[in-house]
Amino acid sequence: MSLTPVERAAHYATRSSRFAKAGPKHLAYFKSVLDQPCSVTQRKGKMLTEKAATAPYNIDWMSQIQGDTPAVLLPTCTKQVSAILRYCQEEKLAVVPQGGNTGLVYGAEPVFDELVLSTQLMSAPPVVSKDTMSVEAEAGVILQQCQEACAKAGMLFPLTMGSKGSAMIGGTVSTNAGGIHFARYGSMHANVLGLEVVTAKGDVLNMMSTLRKDNAGYDLKHLFIGSEGTLGVVTRSAIRLYQQPRSKQTAMFRLSNFESVLALYHLAQEHLAECLSAFEVMDGESLTTSPANQVPYKRTDKNDAFRAGSDFTAAYFCVLVETNGSSETHDFEKLSEFVESAQTRLGDQLSGGGAYEPILSQSAAQTAQLWELREGVPVHLASSGRIYKYDVSFPIDKFYCIVEHTREIVYKKHKVNPAEVLVVGYGHFGDGNVHLNVIDLTRSHAAELDAALYPGVYEFCAAHGGSISAEHGVGMQKRDYVHLSRTPETIRLMQDVKRMMDPNGILNPYKVLPLDT
Amino acid sequence: MSLTPVERAAHYATRSSRFAKAGPKHLAYFKSVLDQPCSVTQRKGKMLTEKAATAPYNIDWMSQIQGDTPAVLLPTCTKQVSAILRYCQEEKLAVVPQGGNTGLVYGAEPVFDELVLSTQLMSAPPVVSKDTMSVEAEAGVILQQCQEACAKAGMLFPLTMGSKGSAMIGGTVSTNAGGIHFARYGSMHANVLGLEVVTAKGDVLNMMSTLRKDNAGYDLKHLFIGSEGTLGVVTRSAIRLYQQPRSKQTAMFRLSNFESVLALYHLAQEHLAECLSAFEVMDGESLTTSPANQVPYKRTDKNDAFRAGSDFTAAYFCVLVETNGSSETHDFEKLSEFVESAQTRLGDQLSGGGAYEPILSQSAAQTAQLWELREGVPVHLASSGRIYKYDVSFPIDKFYCIVEHTREIVYKKHKVNPAEVLVVGYGHFGDGNVHLNVIDLTRSHAAELDAALYPGVYEFCAAHGGSISAEHGVGMQKRDYVHLSRTPETIRLMQDVKRMMDPNGILNPYKVLPLDT
Ligand SMILES: Cc1cc2nc3c(=O)[nH]c(=O)nc-3n(C[C@H](O)[C@H](O)[C@H](O)COP(=O)(O)OP(=O)(O)OC[C@H]3O[C@@H](n4cnc5c(N)ncnc54)[C@H](O)[C@@H]3O)c2cc1C
Ligand SMILES: Cc1cc2nc3c(=O)[nH]c(=O)nc-3n(C[C@H](O)[C@H](O)[C@H](O)COP(=O)(O)OP(=O)(O)OC[C@H]3O[C@@H](n4cnc5c(N)ncnc54)[C@H](O)[C@@H]3O)c2cc1C
Repeated sequence: MSLTPVERAAHYATRSSRFAKAGPKHLAYFKSVLDQPCSVTQRKGKMLTEKAATAPYNIDWMSQIQGDTPAVLLPTCTKQVSAILRYCQEEKLAVVPQGGNTGLVYGAEPVFDELVLSTQLMSAPPVVSKDTMSVEAEAGVILQQCQEACAKAGMLFPLTMGSKGSAMIGGTVSTNAGGIHFARYGSMHANVLGLEVVTAKGDVLNMMSTLRKDNAGYDLKHLFIGSEGTLGVVTRSAIRLYQQPRSKQTAMFRLSNFESVLALYHLAQEHLAECLSAFEVMDGESLTTSPANQVPYKRTDKNDAFRAGSDFTAAYFCVLVETNGSSETHDFEKLSEFVESAQTRLGDQLSGGGAYEPILSQSAAQTAQLWELREGVPVHLASSGRIYKYDVSFPIDKFYCIVEHTREIVYKKHKVNPAEVLVVGYGHFGDGNVHLNVIDLTRSHAAELDAALYPGVYEFCAAHGGSISAEHGVGMQKRDYVHLSRTPETIRLMQDVKRMMDPNGILNPYKVLPLDT
Repeated sequence: MSLTPVERAAHYATRSSRFAKAGPKHLAYFKSVLDQPCSVTQRKGKMLTEKAATAPYNIDWMSQIQGDTPAVLLPTCTKQVSAILRYCQEEKLAVVPQGGNTGLVYGAEPVFDELVLSTQLMSAPPVVSKDTMSVEAEAGVILQQCQEACAKAGMLFPLTMGSKGSAMIGGTVSTNAGGIHFARYGSMHANVLGLEVVTAKGDVLNMMSTLRKDNAGYDLKHLFIGSEGTLGVVTRSAIRLYQQPRSKQTAMFRLSNFESVLALYHLAQEHLAECLSAFEVMDGESLTTSPANQVPYKRTDKNDAFRAGSDFTAAYFCVLVETNGSSETHDFEKLSEFVESAQTRLGDQLSGGGAYEPILSQSAAQTAQLWELREGVPVHLASSGRIYKYDVSFPIDKFYCIVEHTREIVYKKHKVNPAEVLVVGYGHFGDGNVHLNVIDLTRSHAAELDAALYPGVYEFCAAHGGSISAEHGVGMQKRDYVHLSRTPETIRLMQDVKRMMDPNGILNPYKVLPLDT
């Protein structure tokens, strides 16, 4: 993928003249701060200034955005973070917080010459408490390591997602990351019990706690959850844990239309209720590029219908259902009853006249295979051509409309050949979270697609009660579209909050909020 | 209960001279606003100024605090609320939002001559959507009516509590109310999907949405959840619903010590996991005043031990466990296995050598009876003498320490006779939420108890990782103690937020935040 026009425009917005340029004096100060060993761990921080060393911190995960930082600061403790931010605020030095750098909206990299503050060295082993059913972790702890520490104590960390091997706890809190188990365990707003943050002014806000209920004044930790490093740097957090499920069951369905997917979802709520842990949907078109041996059903497509220009719904839908519970027997019974009930109610819509029976996984290997299909979808799509990715959300009954609409625009209005450009949808159905992907297989339709998709996709969200960002956040990528999902009064209050907390606007500039004009 | 010294001091704090006195000119303006019929419902608002009519709005639920409002404003729509607040901000008129007036921290009443803005007339029937599993309700909708509307559609509203017949949705959102099912379904931060708020400046923030995932910029609705009407008036909200459980099971246990309660809780997590919906604890002393026919176990007390001054733990503990699930058979099986496992693991601690077998409810009537015991506790305690009520929270392994500590202070340090003053603890164990109650049965120990409890109880919370307010909030009652649960930096940010959003401080003054000095 090359930069879209929007991204290009944003990327080349002018550097704000209000920021100072970091010079030798500043770097000497940072070095002196980072050379002070942490009073707890005795570890010193680090500063990187060599181009070769700073390079990976300058580029985003998708290799689209490239900044030019003069220095990457790697503190080891909250005190160092505080000293750095206080100084940056005074000296008007712009700084971008960075965790695992897996964000997908160009939020964690410098746009111009911002300093990078990486949490990488703040990664003491997380502390798991069975009694309070919580884990305390420094910002730089990698998600997967945190999950593993919890699992060792018989506890489940509520968040998991494809980027778990690199994403860091501070990053997941700052982006209010969602993932696969969101429908069951909720968002970071539901699960973060305590937080330590250094504000843009350098103040340390110690809001650490493992209490479940605590209504002693405004609950300010929510200001920092999901504000993508524009209001403060998260240094530590305490997160609620759940009982590690003893049983995990999966089933896969092939359905002939969207109405049946919706009906199946309501049936799942009824039959699986408290143990439902995932309800993932993939349209038939999204499976086009997956290896044949991964797809358990005969693949069909509707290219002729798309070309004819009257019917833009999917050829079929695949649904992956997962349950997590405390009893293997009970969960298997519930799942079996659910499958039977679905067969009775949905009949041919489900079985395709007997050709497509539901698959009830019989082994861990089969479960892994079904998840491999789901997790492979974005990977195989991305490697098949130039890809446009949208992470949007809708009320679940309107989950699929954005895909149909985009097909209409691309195939009918812009007359693109459906054999050359895929328009597909998949995602976390229970959360209304659609991943709309458009793949230019021949890499020859940039002009039509740029015209078709910007700002059309986001405007469609706005017009249909959807959000332009379900889980990935805003960053620089969607900054200029926030007004489509938020009212002017709400955006004004966001700006007031930002101004109050970060008078010189030094923390993660050019991101999330509209540019000052 | 008469006012405690703290409450008295707060109550008689001087009226702030920065506020204007509402005169005829102001009232005429309000009347003109309220006389405009709402553009949707065509209903006009109301204004009450007669003493007899305003009286109930001037007094809190516990009849402790009495304000003297010149007028109660009863708008019917958001536009009227906006006009009222914009005018109050300009004219420096203080105003207190009021819902069902069931708050227990003196937050919803005027302290002096603040205007009352009641949401009572904003109570259109709530709109339940099965598709999005959410309900949209105006601020003045009564909690129980909202629950019933949801139940009719097969959905469960996540919040329930003793005040459900009077508390209003806007009030529950503004206090981040907890209640019995908090451990299962989470807080208002977890369940509020969308919010409409009128800020203290009169701006309407339309953040209504039923989306599950929406990371398009700062999630500002959290600022208003739990800020007790000091930052804005909630006019509408959309709240997440859950599948109505098909099965509800209960069991009761009698345990000989706190360690066994903790062990039982961990066993419940293991065996009941996804279907556990309540784990309520009552110490033996809290059952002293309940009618004998409600208490299924032989009552004992430890007055002699308390008097001897060396052992302050409870005589015994009662635990009420509830499950909610989708299968009667499964849930009953899980509960039975849990009971068996508890008997094996806890032996005599649980059964008292066979004298106290666990009770597995066999009928709806028996379940109702067990809940009656639990819900009756505060009622019977309150009617037995002068009561001091504390709603605090601790990490669950320290749940009971505050009760033991208070006994030590009252019985040992202040030499109060345990037969004349009860010190008891009960509450939502899973949330670490202890209700510490001290009951002066002879109404003759005010001096010792005032000295023993203030500020001792709150200071003990602070020293042991607890919160001075678990679910009831701060209001005027705990305003002067917030610093025990929040750091100076955090309180400073609360004040900054308040100042930014309400420059003249007109919205619910004298509450939540320290008084300006
Ligand atoms: C393969 C893949 C799969 C993904 N799947 C999902 C998914 O299912 N759900 C989902 O929600 N996201 C997903 N993402 C996006 C991404 O992983 C998440 O947004 C993640 O939470 C980012 O964490 P990070 O540590 O990499 O943060 P970064 O990318 O380093 O930073 C993200 C943002 O947070 C800020 N930030 C980082 N650390 C801090 C801190 N300590 N304090 C303050 N601000 C900070 C940065 O400035 C930036 O704005 C996926 C990404 C990839 C590459
Ligand atoms: C018998 C009984 C049992 C209770 N049990 C529980 C329990 O289990 N858990 C629990 O958490 N609480 C409990 N409470 C406390 C109380 O019911 C809750 O705090 C409830 O949420 C208050 O709702 P309300 O509508 O009565 O609000 P009010 O008492 O009218 O107001 C409470 C606060 O919110 C503000 N407010 C009210 N409406 C609005 C609005 N629309 N916009 C902005 N601010 C507003 C007020 O200014 C005030 O500060 C109980 C109370 C009683 C009397």
